[in-house]
Amino acid sequence: MVVVGSVAYDGVETPHGKVDRMLGGAATYIALSASFFTKPKIVAVVGDDFAQEDTDLLASRGIDLEGLERVPGKCFFWAGKYSPDMNDRETLVTDLNVFADFSPKLPDAYKTTPYLLLGNIQPALQKVVQDQMDGTSLKLVGGDTMNYWIGAFREELLKTIAGWDFLLINDGEARMLSGETNLKKAAAKIMEMGPKTLVIKRGEYGAILWRPEGHFMVPGYLLEDVFDPTGAGDCFAGGFMGYLAGQGVDISSPDADHNEIRRAVIYGSVMGSFCCERFGVDRFRTLTREEIDGRFEEFKAFTSF
Amino acid sequence: MVVVGSVAYDGVETPHGKVDRMLGGAATYIALSASFFTKPKIVAVVGDDFAQEDTDLLASRGIDLEGLERVPGKCFFWAGKYSPDMNDRETLVTDLNVFADFSPKLPDAYKTTPYLLLGNIQPALQKVVQDQMDGTSLKLVGGDTMNYWIGAFREELLKTIAGWDFLLINDGEARMLSGETNLKKAAAKIMEMGPKTLVIKRGEYGAILWRPEGHFMVPGYLLEDVFDPTGAGDCFAGGFMGYLAGQGVDISSPDADHNEIRRAVIYGSVMGSFCCERFGVDRFRTLTREEIDGRFEEFKAFTSF
Repeated sequence: MVVVGSVAYDGVETPHGKVDRMLGGAATYIALSASFFTKPKIVAVVGDDFAQEDTDLLASRGIDLEGLERVPGKCFFWAGKYSPDMNDRETLVTDLNVFADFSPKLPDAYKTTPYLLLGNIQPALQKVVQDQMDGTSLKLVGGDTMNYWIGAFREELLKTIAGWDFLLINDGEARMLSGETNLKKAAAKIMEMGPKTLVIKRGEYGAILWRPEGHFMVPGYLLEDVFDPTGAGDCFAGGFMGYLAGQGVDISSPDADHNEIRRAVIYGSVMGSFCCERFGVDRFRTLTREEIDGRFEEFKAFTSF
Repeated sequence: MVVVGSVAYDGVETPHGKVDRMLGGAATYIALSASFFTKPKIVAVVGDDFAQEDTDLLASRGIDLEGLERVPGKCFFWAGKYSPDMNDRETLVTDLNVFADFSPKLPDAYKTTPYLLLGNIQPALQKVVQDQMDGTSLKLVGGDTMNYWIGAFREELLKTIAGWDFLLINDGEARMLSGETNLKKAAAKIMEMGPKTLVIKRGEYGAILWRPEGHFMVPGYLLEDVFDPTGAGDCFAGGFMGYLAGQGVDISSPDADHNEIRRAVIYGSVMGSFCCERFGVDRFRTLTREEIDGRFEEFKAFTSF
């Protein structure tokens, strides 16, 4: 699968501590999460301050870095501080740096990849990437967006998602995009915009999958301590798409196995929950597929009746 | 099963409309909800303004009214107004009226009932009722409480719930009672206070059942329109306990069928969701067991993977 998005440095403060600078960015989290299921190929840009140890971490997880462009200047830097209950966060710094002129160029070797995940960047850029892919090889395309693009780039966003098989957004964004407060109504409106598969993430309350054949709800995994929720949504996306890519599932096919899509949502939830257990990407330094499958079984145990 | 609580009149304003006076009260909602599974016996007090049509509604659902005491004066009256998203409400009027001197007295015929549900009243009164029951017949006892009793009557409350098999509260109350923000930690602390079965209700986000053998999570049913959430928590309690009573399940027994307890949580969720579909108790005037079982199957369909 191909992943497009930011590879960045983050400064994060939560009630559990403060880290001034650590590896972050949507494409980083997505690729690390997906790497437990498939071989992700990154498309992103970094500055000349991107550390060798961070390159090494990504490479150690089998992530293809051919599309990781290096240019003079500094990496995208974001800093934020979470509220005491960690349901809100305040952005303290957004330095786009080399990301300001990001013009994604896909290596030829990426163009026939069947799975494409467009991380949260300017919607027109997401479309530029999709247009570079070989349409006949492309099995599944989808991505993420955020309130800023929904508000200020609505027309571009609508053009972009019209060509997507799936969209992953949170509940507040779903309400903003659809203009509907009620999630059932919001989901119906968004599915008319293009994506026939919609995942609405609800933070600690889990996620809802919407499909033409019906919806599927999964509660959020209960953690004793949430250290740092940064990247959890991206890890959800990475687990979701990574699982589908690893299994070779084509969710846009009329005879797609609905249960495989539901399982992908569970794997997304599993990866999002692991992400919160340590600061930044730290949990992925030691995580194993065995732990992931163990937590998948926990989801089965605490939801079945 | 015996149900203790208020039988009252409510004035309710939601974004969908306003009703100045309608049948309400915790015992009313609990008993109506439970009546689809078992024969509830009410213990409550009403004034001489309690309307014949309301008595008739309760009787028509097979509810035993021998313990519904009638005294001179007016029924308990509560009025409230919901916020636009209906997640908050403001109390406008609380006229205790005849409820101010409520001293529950169980008819002899009630005392050997195996199931006792103590609705949200002063904790010492809840204990008075339990003490009137024949301990050797009592199979299962539990109930509800609220932030006011947790704050101002903490000692009485702790004494009362120490003798309960189960406690049903919402997430905010669980945090207040335990002093823990994290729900896993909160649940562990509350279970040390007595009840070995705990249900934490999360409004539109569903509920969590905690038991010594592990927890069970159910998402909230998605409604297109929530007309009036008043009584939804009581209807949850009525469905939960009503189902257990109807099936004769003893959840305090070490060989209790865990799946029956999970199914009771689903029936609680089903009844809470129906409650919100109309103002006040109106949905229960036409609801059928077939509709209830149909929604139970819907829960299975949208949660299994």
